[in-house]
Amino acid sequence: MTDGQAESTFPPGAEFEEVAQTIREHLAAQGFMKLIGAELVGLSPGQCTLSVSRRPDLLQQYGMFHGGVTAFLVDNGTTIAAMAAMKPGRAALTAEYKLNLLSPAMGDQLVCRARVVKPGNTLVVVAADVFAVVEGREKHTATALATIAVLELDGLSKVAR
Amino acid sequence: MTDGQAESTFPPGAEFEEVAQTIREHLAAQGFMKLIGAELVGLSPGQCTLSVSRRPDLLQQYGMFHGGVTAFLVDNGTTIAAMAAMKPGRAALTAEYKLNLLSPAMGDQLVCRARVVKPGNTLVVVAADVFAVVEGREKHTATALATIAVLELDGLSKVAR
Amino acid sequence: MTDGQAESTFPPGAEFEEVAQTIREHLAAQGFMKLIGAELVGLSPGQCTLSVSRRPDLLQQYGMFHGGVTAFLVDNGTTIAAMAAMKPGRAALTAEYKLNLLSPAMGDQLVCRARVVKPGNTLVVVAADVFAVVEGREKHTATALATIAVLELDGLSKVAR
Amino acid sequence: MTDGQAESTFPPGAEFEEVAQTIREHLAAQGFMKLIGAELVGLSPGQCTLSVSRRPDLLQQYGMFHGGVTAFLVDNGTTIAAMAAMKPGRAALTAEYKLNLLSPAMGDQLVCRARVVKPGNTLVVVAADVFAVVEGREKHTATALATIAVLELDGLSKVAR
Repeated sequence: MTDGQAESTFPPGAEFEEVAQTIREHLAAQGFMKLIGAELVGLSPGQCTLSVSRRPDLLQQYGMFHGGVTAFLVDNGTTIAAMAAMKPGRAALTAEYKLNLLSPAMGDQLVCRARVVKPGNTLVVVAADVFAVVEGREKHTATALATIAVLELDGLSKVAR
Repeated sequence: MTDGQAESTFPPGAEFEEVAQTIREHLAAQGFMKLIGAELVGLSPGQCTLSVSRRPDLLQQYGMFHGGVTAFLVDNGTTIAAMAAMKPGRAALTAEYKLNLLSPAMGDQLVCRARVVKPGNTLVVVAADVFAVVEGREKHTATALATIAVLELDGLSKVAR
Repeated sequence: MTDGQAESTFPPGAEFEEVAQTIREHLAAQGFMKLIGAELVGLSPGQCTLSVSRRPDLLQQYGMFHGGVTAFLVDNGTTIAAMAAMKPGRAALTAEYKLNLLSPAMGDQLVCRARVVKPGNTLVVVAADVFAVVEGREKHTATALATIAVLELDGLSKVAR
Repeated sequence: MTDGQAESTFPPGAEFEEVAQTIREHLAAQGFMKLIGAELVGLSPGQCTLSVSRRPDLLQQYGMFHGGVTAFLVDNGTTIAAMAAMKPGRAALTAEYKLNLLSPAMGDQLVCRARVVKPGNTLVVVAADVFAVVEGREKHTATALATIAVLELDGLSKVAR
C-alpha cells in the first residue's frame, strides 16, 4: 500500500503547465539526456513519451540498442510521468523499478511510453513500455513497473548538495 | 525455480579463460560501453566489477550520476557475471532485473559489483550492488537482482539479425 | 529478451482444451489452493481469473486481506495464465515476479486477473492485477509482472522428486 | 534514492523492545499467520527469521511448498524486519517486492531470513532469502528485495477503517 493519506489527484490546467515547465528545465539540465540524444516527445498529466534514434554508440555487440538505453528510457520516463502527476513544488525520485526485456531492441528508434498507475502523496506507481520502431511499425521490446518517491523540491536540493 | 536440469558448475581454468576472452570482445564491440566510458575492472568465474568516472554528460540536473548510468552498470554487470558462470559457446541475455536506488549517486566514480546467486542451464540469477566513491570511500547507492537467460551463441546471432 | 526461437503462438481449440484440463487437475491437487479457498473463475488462452472470499483467517491485524493472499493469487494466477498460452505437454514454473501493493486490500473478495504479455518457447512474461471487491465495486489493490519458465512436463516430474 | 532526510538509525535497547512487542502483537492478530502455521523464530534490530513446517495443505501438485507460502514468508518477513528497524509508534507497510525462485521448495521446513539493507524515514529497503530444510541441511530456494513504507501507527489505523 503506497500511503494512507488522501490521494493526489492529477494537477489541473495551470498547475500542470507549471509542473511541465519544471520537467522541461530538469531535462534540459541533464547532461546524460543530451549524451544519449533522447527527446521528450509527449507530456500530459501522469503520462510521457520519450524517444531516441539509432546511433552506433547506443548499440551493443549485435547491433541492437544496448539494454542500458532501454533502462535509461524507463528510468527517466517513469520519473517524468510521476512528476507530471504531482502538484507544483514537488520532485520525483526513483525508489525502484523492474523491467522485463521482451524482444531484441533492433530498429531505427526506441520509444518509451510511461503512465501513472497509482498517484499518491508519498509514492507514485508508474508503468512503462518500450517499443522499437522497425520500418515504421512498433514492436514491443520491454515492459516495466516503477515506484517513485515524492519529495519537496526544497528537500531535494538539500539531498543534492 | 529456474530449471530442472543438473546445474551448471562454474567453468574451470581454461574454459573460463575462453569465456573471459569472449566477454572482452563483446564489450569492445559495444558502442554504448565506450560512449559512457565504463571499464571492466574485475572478472572472475561468476563475478565482475565495472566502473565509470564522473563526467558532466553522465549526470542529471542535481549533479548526481543519472539513474540511467546506474541502470547501464547493473544491466551490463549482471549479464557479464552470468556469462562468466557459463560454459564457452553460450551467451547471456538479460530477461529482467529490478533495482532499488538507495542513496544519491554523488561522487567521483560509480562501481558496480555483480555476482551469480544461482547458476543454471537455462536461467542464471545474479545480484549486483552499486557504490559511489566519495573521497576514496564507497557509499552503497543501489542494489539489484537480475534473471539472465542462457542462449547458444549461434542462436544469438540469429536473434540479432 | 526472453528467447531467440520463433515464438509460441497461443494454442488453438482442441489443444487449449487439453491444457485447460491439465491446469484444472494441477489446481485440484494443490493443498494450498484449497486451504485458501481460492477458485479459478475464468480461463482462456493466455488469461485467467482467480478469486477468493473474505474469511478471518485470510486477514492481517487491521482486517485487510494479508499481503500473502495477494502474493498467492499473483503467483498462481501468472503461472496458470502462462500455462494457458503453452502447448500441451509443457509445464509453467515461476522464475520470478514483482508486485506493487497499491491500496489496502479491504473488501469482501479479492480477484486476480492475469494475462500473458509475451509468449515464448522458454520464457513467458505475464502481467497481473488484483482488485478488492467492496460493495460490488472493484478497487485496484495490486499490480504485478512475472517471468515464467517453460518446462517439459516430464522434466518437471524429475524436478519434483 | 529512498529519502532525503537524515536516516533512521536502528533503535537501541528499550525502544527496540517496545517495537518487538508491537510486532509480536501484530503477528498474534494475523489470522493468516495462524492459518499457515508460521512462527517468528528470530527477531533483532533490522532482522527477523520466520519458519513454517511442511503440511499437505501448504503444498502444490508436485509435493513442494506452494510458491504462495514462499511469497507469504517474504511479504511478512520483510515487513517485520523493516519495522524492527523503526522507532516505536511507526508501522511498516509493504510498497512492493520482487522475488526469484531459485530451486524447488522441497523439504521439511521453509525458513525465511530478512534483513534491512537501507533504513530510512519514509522507505526501508529489505532483502530476504528463503531456504528449504532437507534432512537438516538448508538449500537456498528463493531470494527477494522489498521496499517498505514507513507510516505513523495512527495513520495506519485510519487506513484500515
